[in-house]
Amino acid sequence: MATLDQMNEYFEKNRDTHLNQMKEFLSIPSISALSEHKADMKKAAEWLSSSFKEAGLENISIESTEGHPVVYADWLHAGGQPTILIYGHYDVQPVDPLHLWESAPFEPEIRDDKMFARGSTDDKGQVFMHVKAVEALMQLDGKLPLNVKFIIEGEEEVGSPNLVPFIEDHKEQLAADTLVISDTALHAPGQPAICYALRGLSGVQIDVYGAKSDLHSGVYGGGLQNPIHAVAEILASFHDQEGTIAVDGFYDSVRNLNEEERQAYKDLNFDEEALKQELGVTELFGEPGYSFLERTSARPTLEVNGVFGGFSGEGIKTVLPAEAGAKITCRLVPDQDPAEIVEKLKAHVEKHKPEGVKVTVTPFDQGRPFITPFDHPALKAASDSYEKVYKVPTVYTRGGGSIPIVADFDEILGLPVVLMGFGLETENLHGPNEHLTLENFDKGLRVLGDYYQALSALSKDELKK
Amino acid sequence: MATLDQMNEYFEKNRDTHLNQMKEFLSIPSISALSEHKADMKKAAEWLSSSFKEAGLENISIESTEGHPVVYADWLHAGGQPTILIYGHYDVQPVDPLHLWESAPFEPEIRDDKMFARGSTDDKGQVFMHVKAVEALMQLDGKLPLNVKFIIEGEEEVGSPNLVPFIEDHKEQLAADTLVISDTALHAPGQPAICYALRGLSGVQIDVYGAKSDLHSGVYGGGLQNPIHAVAEILASFHDQEGTIAVDGFYDSVRNLNEEERQAYKDLNFDEEALKQELGVTELFGEPGYSFLERTSARPTLEVNGVFGGFSGEGIKTVLPAEAGAKITCRLVPDQDPAEIVEKLKAHVEKHKPEGVKVTVTPFDQGRPFITPFDHPALKAASDSYEKVYKVPTVYTRGGGSIPIVADFDEILGLPVVLMGFGLETENLHGPNEHLTLENFDKGLRVLGDYYQALSALSKDELKK
Repeated sequence: MATLDQMNEYFEKNRDTHLNQMKEFLSIPSISALSEHKADMKKAAEWLSSSFKEAGLENISIESTEGHPVVYADWLHAGGQPTILIYGHYDVQPVDPLHLWESAPFEPEIRDDKMFARGSTDDKGQVFMHVKAVEALMQLDGKLPLNVKFIIEGEEEVGSPNLVPFIEDHKEQLAADTLVISDTALHAPGQPAICYALRGLSGVQIDVYGAKSDLHSGVYGGGLQNPIHAVAEILASFHDQEGTIAVDGFYDSVRNLNEEERQAYKDLNFDEEALKQELGVTELFGEPGYSFLERTSARPTLEVNGVFGGFSGEGIKTVLPAEAGAKITCRLVPDQDPAEIVEKLKAHVEKHKPEGVKVTVTPFDQGRPFITPFDHPALKAASDSYEKVYKVPTVYTRGGGSIPIVADFDEILGLPVVLMGFGLETENLHGPNEHLTLENFDKGLRVLGDYYQALSALSKDELKK
Repeated sequence: MATLDQMNEYFEKNRDTHLNQMKEFLSIPSISALSEHKADMKKAAEWLSSSFKEAGLENISIESTEGHPVVYADWLHAGGQPTILIYGHYDVQPVDPLHLWESAPFEPEIRDDKMFARGSTDDKGQVFMHVKAVEALMQLDGKLPLNVKFIIEGEEEVGSPNLVPFIEDHKEQLAADTLVISDTALHAPGQPAICYALRGLSGVQIDVYGAKSDLHSGVYGGGLQNPIHAVAEILASFHDQEGTIAVDGFYDSVRNLNEEERQAYKDLNFDEEALKQELGVTELFGEPGYSFLERTSARPTLEVNGVFGGFSGEGIKTVLPAEAGAKITCRLVPDQDPAEIVEKLKAHVEKHKPEGVKVTVTPFDQGRPFITPFDHPALKAASDSYEKVYKVPTVYTRGGGSIPIVADFDEILGLPVVLMGFGLETENLHGPNEHLTLENFDKGLRVLGDYYQALSALSKDELKK
């Protein structure tokens, strides 16, 4: 197998070629949200197919869906070695506001050793890195150390509406021992991170109905239940005064952080003082016994995202409104079940709703939480590969947000998921002047090449989740 | 002094003349809110002056204010007899939506023995009744049984911004033993009522500030105080679970209902079941130990009129908002002080505000509560006069709303206020097809004539508040 030195030499020699190829890919305006770019979506899928072919991959196909196509490719000649499935997306966000871009979003330009273009970091640039890493090993060794499958979709930026059915319909074809996704960021410049868990999501809208129509508070106030009072009472009942969620059984299925995980949080040396400054608050607040980072990524939450009722214009209107309501989302952690949480929220509202009003609870879309066990060998191998190239220990993090598709892969294919990102939070993904820092492009190619080799050294049994 | 029979004969004989005169007055579009009607306001004031002159009143003047003029007139030849001050307003509400009117708002038309026109019941029609009642006694007896002063303003529908300074500047001129206002309604058709108390008003806006800007609830949720949670907690703290206001000292200055007053409420035989049907609620709710009518008119309230924060559009947005807030008004009863209540609300918020947010409390305009003691002779006399004409016992009520100007008169001039209304709640005041039921116009003229005489039989000492 190729050594890291050989890879270094290879990637240095081919750097200009690779950057030019990446520019080609980035110059295709594959905006999935805008129907006028349907042809561009096809063009991007075709460009990707060609690059798979050049890399030496096989069984390349552009698979139609009800929306934009999924591009598949594989190389399955590694016999009993593990199989890695690589997921990414070739679609990008719209580019408005265009006037804030310093160079045109689809005319890629390198400035300060950064590639500026829509999709450079999210996610075409990172998908391209996997293609080139595979190609490198193929060039250097004439073969790959493990079986590889690519599934690159074109609808991630519009919520992946057709991916779950696709995965379900192609379960056999997509079967693998590990899923790798490069669509996230390093922890900080020069600081690689393994994001080993993401939170799930479930939410409800609470609507409270009083009288048939708005009433004059001078005539009816004090005489019947005010829907705003009812909403306030319900919302206030969701947490205790210290910030712990007071919904019966809410924490029942929560997988607690173990000592190793808590140590990993401490090792991040997160600066809560700096955060307070940045946010403009005098104190942080939340579930006692956990740090800010733990609360926002490893603990479940219940947040009211909106409340409404009555008059909110300037001045005063003495109305007793007919309706009031609130929108609530919970971020969930393993092993909470989104549907079960909705039932618990419903039961809580039923128990705490005041007299004299009608209350309805309507669920929103749900997403499962995801976790790859902290000590899983596929994560350890990724951590080691990062460390070899970046020369610092890899940190372990959990993401506070939700990427439902990750949990869906986990759920349907039952395999460990490794989130190996090479972007930076500051690279303006979704905004103007999106870019990819080329230092991380260069290092990432080497990390991936090394990682494929490291994974191949593990047995299928070791990789079982 | 003229007997009721003589008055009957007089009013019957002059009915057509009176109705035609009233139509003249109602045909002037005296909309105080719209600047294009400034000349009409002057015209209405002049029409009123002429009618005062015809009635035999003296010292008639159209007094300028910073807004629309106040019309004054008096007759002060009754020596040591009491003086009655009559307040009303000649301005009217705008007429939109015009297309819902069956006849033009300023082309008065009698249909089904009702006078349809803007201002017919609120309040030009009722002011006109006082003028004609005074004129009747003057015609029948050649003099009045007591001293009379009229103060009719032109800005009631825009909040009487210039009346308080006017009263303060004319304290001597307006000095009287009783104030009579006919700008309210009977309790029901055929059922006269004395409204002997009105509630006061004070209110605050509560604003809660968290982080500098809206945050993503997936990234920050659970990590710092959510302003909506804080608002909900504050709002929920204002009442106990049964609906009693939980603000320290809120009820301290409340003058409790005596047995006679509570009996008067019971005598109204108010149908709470019918109200529930009408409002579409399964139960009424509020401070325990009091009936719906007591709660909405004789007890103070704290109602949230509006709550806002975060996202309230369709679907969901996982935002942790930077701000949230609420608007609150309290209806106050004697002897609560609006400014003192604001201080108590502030202290309550200070005590109940959660950690991690900044909270401000901003007061709105205030109005004092008003009461004329239930057993005051001026009320008893009014009750008797109603009863003589309507042939049913007069009921005693309190108004749940606030007419701050009533409390201002009370405060500045220190005299009992008698609210003798002849309208009906169903007469569409402020809406399209406003009308005055002529049965109450006819009866009202007789009630007022009788009342002036009855008041004159009381001594100034008896009338002292």
